[in-house]
Amino acid sequence: MLYDIAIVGGGPAGCSAAVTAANRSLSALLLDTGDFGLALRKSALVKNYLGMPDRSGAELMDAFTAHMKAAGTTVVPHKVLSILPREKHFYLATPGEVYEARSILLCPGASHGKPLEGETAMLGKGVTYCATCDGYLYRGKTIGVVTNLPSAWEEVEFLAGVAGEVKLWADFPLPEKRPANVQTMEGKPRKVLGEERVEALETTAGTEKLEGLFLLRETDPLDRLLPGLRLDGPFIRVDDNLATSVEGVFAAGDAVGYPWQINKAAGEGQKALLSAASWLRENPV
Amino acid sequence: MLYDIAIVGGGPAGCSAAVTAANRSLSALLLDTGDFGLALRKSALVKNYLGMPDRSGAELMDAFTAHMKAAGTTVVPHKVLSILPREKHFYLATPGEVYEARSILLCPGASHGKPLEGETAMLGKGVTYCATCDGYLYRGKTIGVVTNLPSAWEEVEFLAGVAGEVKLWADFPLPEKRPANVQTMEGKPRKVLGEERVEALETTAGTEKLEGLFLLRETDPLDRLLPGLRLDGPFIRVDDNLATSVEGVFAAGDAVGYPWQINKAAGEGQKALLSAASWLRENPV
Repeated sequence: MLYDIAIVGGGPAGCSAAVTAANRSLSALLLDTGDFGLALRKSALVKNYLGMPDRSGAELMDAFTAHMKAAGTTVVPHKVLSILPREKHFYLATPGEVYEARSILLCPGASHGKPLEGETAMLGKGVTYCATCDGYLYRGKTIGVVTNLPSAWEEVEFLAGVAGEVKLWADFPLPEKRPANVQTMEGKPRKVLGEERVEALETTAGTEKLEGLFLLRETDPLDRLLPGLRLDGPFIRVDDNLATSVEGVFAAGDAVGYPWQINKAAGEGQKALLSAASWLRENPV
Repeated sequence: MLYDIAIVGGGPAGCSAAVTAANRSLSALLLDTGDFGLALRKSALVKNYLGMPDRSGAELMDAFTAHMKAAGTTVVPHKVLSILPREKHFYLATPGEVYEARSILLCPGASHGKPLEGETAMLGKGVTYCATCDGYLYRGKTIGVVTNLPSAWEEVEFLAGVAGEVKLWADFPLPEKRPANVQTMEGKPRKVLGEERVEALETTAGTEKLEGLFLLRETDPLDRLLPGLRLDGPFIRVDDNLATSVEGVFAAGDAVGYPWQINKAAGEGQKALLSAASWLRENPV
């Protein structure tokens, strides 16, 4: 199926865009790791989402995803590995499948921040962003996994079933029952070390030898996700209509600028969706 | 009292700004006719305010004003007649009182649209925007009142107590009990007629002779409200930070551009308030 729009990221901006897409009778696919608004979920108390005072971030996100799902959005619980522009539409590759959409709305949040030192140089040389894609390359080996995604636990278990040893840096509470070869590590990852290939990960608690490093995050670096996407410092460059430098690709929310506020993100999700709707009318299949 | 910021208009943008002001410990004064979000209140069903699906506009506005009031905002239930910039602060004149604030946030909504034909030429020559200011000039005379504000009913009664006859064009349900000299009129006002002074109002249902014309609307024409405020067509001109052409004055919501959506307005209210907060820090008293 060719969707009218693929929304990448299911935080406030993405959920708001999906609801507005439904109101405009556009077919929308929303792709998210399954964590939905990880940054917001960490807020204990949000006082200024207008009309819903004094809720936790998790309560708000639950209301937002319920609204988004009730609107009939098709949700894909996988992160997008890459977006390929083709004539008249885009391919979106996830670990499991490839999807097609006529336009793209990027709502990846603020967490696409800068890579670890050495990460970009070692990409494809032991550093990877996809457990199911590359796990089999590390059969019996010692690997590292760095993740902030509760939803990535399944992938950690998958990797543990393949690799010899898994050194895990995770910043969320882990299940009690863990595979015997998963070792939870201290310290904050700082630098990927290696000459031809990954050899170790330097952290604030010391350096650990590794043969492969899986970085499982909400969003991979954006210029890798979509080549040609222009950035302004840490932000996706957009015009007044929230169009990016790539034709047919729009962006909204924390990824396009400050302030990092829920109403702002949700409002931009609406605005970007309506810009995409205009673009779709002007660029029929 | 000198407020940090005066918010003109209590729709979604203004309420959102007031809540954010409270979070930033800024003293905020919110001025509104008392109708709070008149345009939104007319919506029977709003499907896309994220997290609160399928509410009426009135239900949403009630939630927004409750949130705004709970945040400790000082509310003035009067419209602003004019804003006077003075060194280091602004005076805001209402029919009853003058207020002072260090910065201004304009959230007048979309309804500040264009004046009636002939309105601007006859301003001060029989056309007026303030019942309590100018009512006494029309003792015993025949006047017209054009209003879309339920909150203006009190002013209509006040004018009826002064004038000889009141011809009323109102687009909301009126109380059963009305002063005997108030005559409700048909038709949509189109043009103010007169040479030296107002002589009549032309409507889609005919022309009515008048000696004075009171236009009681949510917001008066913006370039009259604040001289020097630059517009872009029907919108207030703002930069990326939602600053207007007048130093210390910011704007948000439907008045600064499309789309006219609640999340967008509320998000801009937050953003403009935070821009004003930065400006206040950089321009101490």
